[in-house]
Amino acid sequence: MELHANIFFPIEIVGTIAFASSGAMVAVRKKLDLFGIIVLGVITAVGGGMLRDLMIGSIPPNMFRNPVYVFTAFLTVLVLFFLFRRWPFLLGSKYIESYEKVMNILDAIGLGAFTVIGIDTGVDAGYGEYHFLIIFLGVITGIGGGILRDIMAGETPYVLKKHVYACASISGACLYVLLLQFTRSDYAMLLSALLVIAIRILASHYRWNLPGIPDS
Amino acid sequence: MELHANIFFPIEIVGTIAFASSGAMVAVRKKLDLFGIIVLGVITAVGGGMLRDLMIGSIPPNMFRNPVYVFTAFLTVLVLFFLFRRWPFLLGSKYIESYEKVMNILDAIGLGAFTVIGIDTGVDAGYGEYHFLIIFLGVITGIGGGILRDIMAGETPYVLKKHVYACASISGACLYVLLLQFTRSDYAMLLSALLVIAIRILASHYRWNLPGIPDS
Amino acid sequence: MELHANIFFPIEIVGTIAFASSGAMVAVRKKLDLFGIIVLGVITAVGGGMLRDLMIGSIPPNMFRNPVYVFTAFLTVLVLFFLFRRWPFLLGSKYIESYEKVMNILDAIGLGAFTVIGIDTGVDAGYGEYHFLIIFLGVITGIGGGILRDIMAGETPYVLKKHVYACASISGACLYVLLLQFTRSDYAMLLSALLVIAIRILASHYRWNLPGIPDS
Repeated sequence: MELHANIFFPIEIVGTIAFASSGAMVAVRKKLDLFGIIVLGVITAVGGGMLRDLMIGSIPPNMFRNPVYVFTAFLTVLVLFFLFRRWPFLLGSKYIESYEKVMNILDAIGLGAFTVIGIDTGVDAGYGEYHFLIIFLGVITGIGGGILRDIMAGETPYVLKKHVYACASISGACLYVLLLQFTRSDYAMLLSALLVIAIRILASHYRWNLPGIPDS
Repeated sequence: MELHANIFFPIEIVGTIAFASSGAMVAVRKKLDLFGIIVLGVITAVGGGMLRDLMIGSIPPNMFRNPVYVFTAFLTVLVLFFLFRRWPFLLGSKYIESYEKVMNILDAIGLGAFTVIGIDTGVDAGYGEYHFLIIFLGVITGIGGGILRDIMAGETPYVLKKHVYACASISGACLYVLLLQFTRSDYAMLLSALLVIAIRILASHYRWNLPGIPDS
Repeated sequence: MELHANIFFPIEIVGTIAFASSGAMVAVRKKLDLFGIIVLGVITAVGGGMLRDLMIGSIPPNMFRNPVYVFTAFLTVLVLFFLFRRWPFLLGSKYIESYEKVMNILDAIGLGAFTVIGIDTGVDAGYGEYHFLIIFLGVITGIGGGILRDIMAGETPYVLKKHVYACASISGACLYVLLLQFTRSDYAMLLSALLVIAIRILASHYRWNLPGIPDS
């Protein structure tokens, strides 16, 4: 746990910043005020882990025991808020496109890190034998914050509609649970996170989509 | 418990199939892709039981300890998906009406079974004396999945708007809690489930509705 | 706890009535039927405390152990329902404005009481040292019911959009946690609740708003 924490901590912080940013951008587009921007930013960043902790009875949820994630998300949102408030033209400019591109990659990194950390939390809590449960814990840690963000913003969760965002998380989670049967090294964790990141970025770049029902 | 489980298991599976189908149909109407269809289908089928388990601290929720329900819901959704993808005309045809009629009856059976099983779970967890709590547990097991489905699909929960769907569940729950004061036989359970099913089907057939506030 | 309960109980009941009324009004505007009106009314009144109890593993949530709050909310909603059903013109008249003005003040009182009681519940559960957690518990007790109401009604939570509703709760929560370092008297509790009420009413009267991002 300690070992994982040490290696993954900076990656988690990167993911927290990217997730908080995605929450803040949704809030800005929804014309919410400062409070709404903070809430959506923070809930996107730590909401997935909170759902995971409630599901396994890890009380109080980790976001309250290690406030560093909430604090990081809070700072991220504040910086964005003052940037956009001072220079609102940034939101309509070409800068925002480059910004979203960088954030898209950081977001993928966050998804990878959160997924494997979610599984690790489940294993540490003694649920290593419940494969379906720990895969679920990994995926909910990865995508739960975005789902809460969209529900609170009154939109159909993004993850239900576009890209193979969730499939990236599920693939990595399955790989990690498979690797856990043989080893519990940091390499297994890293490899699985990399799979998530790769699928997520490729899906976003090539606009992969899952099949739907054609109009009749 | 074992006894109840044996008798009620096939009925639960029928309910799971019907609930999963209702979730999948909402997702199809919302033009969601395969992942969205699976998530809404599964959450409709097992979401109510998950909320119930969180409420009484039964951790991890039963859906993870007995994956048979998730698996059944998953299979149901997959079958529907491939049917509708292969023959999209089915969705617009007269077949869908007959299908919805059959599903409406299975859905009523599911509502009855889930309601009494929810109460039973509460009693087994030692809350037999908390009458209000166990009635709530029964009702949330019956209607919670549909509420989660609608919230995730970005709609006002169906149960808040139409028919006396929830009242059927509440009536049966109250009857079962009443009967529990005298006996804890399978007959009490069956009788209460039948009351739910009867009210639910009659309400749907005769389009019973609860009163609202007339326009001023 | 007992002492607090004695002093704060009537104030809690006032808050419960005001919150239930706000839930019922949203349901009436949404044209929901009797069941929808009851659910939104009750969930607005006790939903915040339920989220708080789930977060700290206080199982089953207090709303089930002390049904007096649910019962009060239920009665409030029933009275409103029959009033508006009997005399629907009330909803469109000048009476509704006076009614909403009175309810706005009772709502402020409820927000104050619920906020400090939420913190107290956290301290009683042994989390006095987790300052961020207990502030969160206070605020979620105060605003959680309204958030659930709006999510179920399919609207972006009111608290994310208007007034400094949440900031009032946060300010009082921070003051109370600060005062708790020195004393745990009823005066500290009362003072903090009064701060919430004052900010809430002033913000509503002077239409204070938090800054947002100007249109670019």
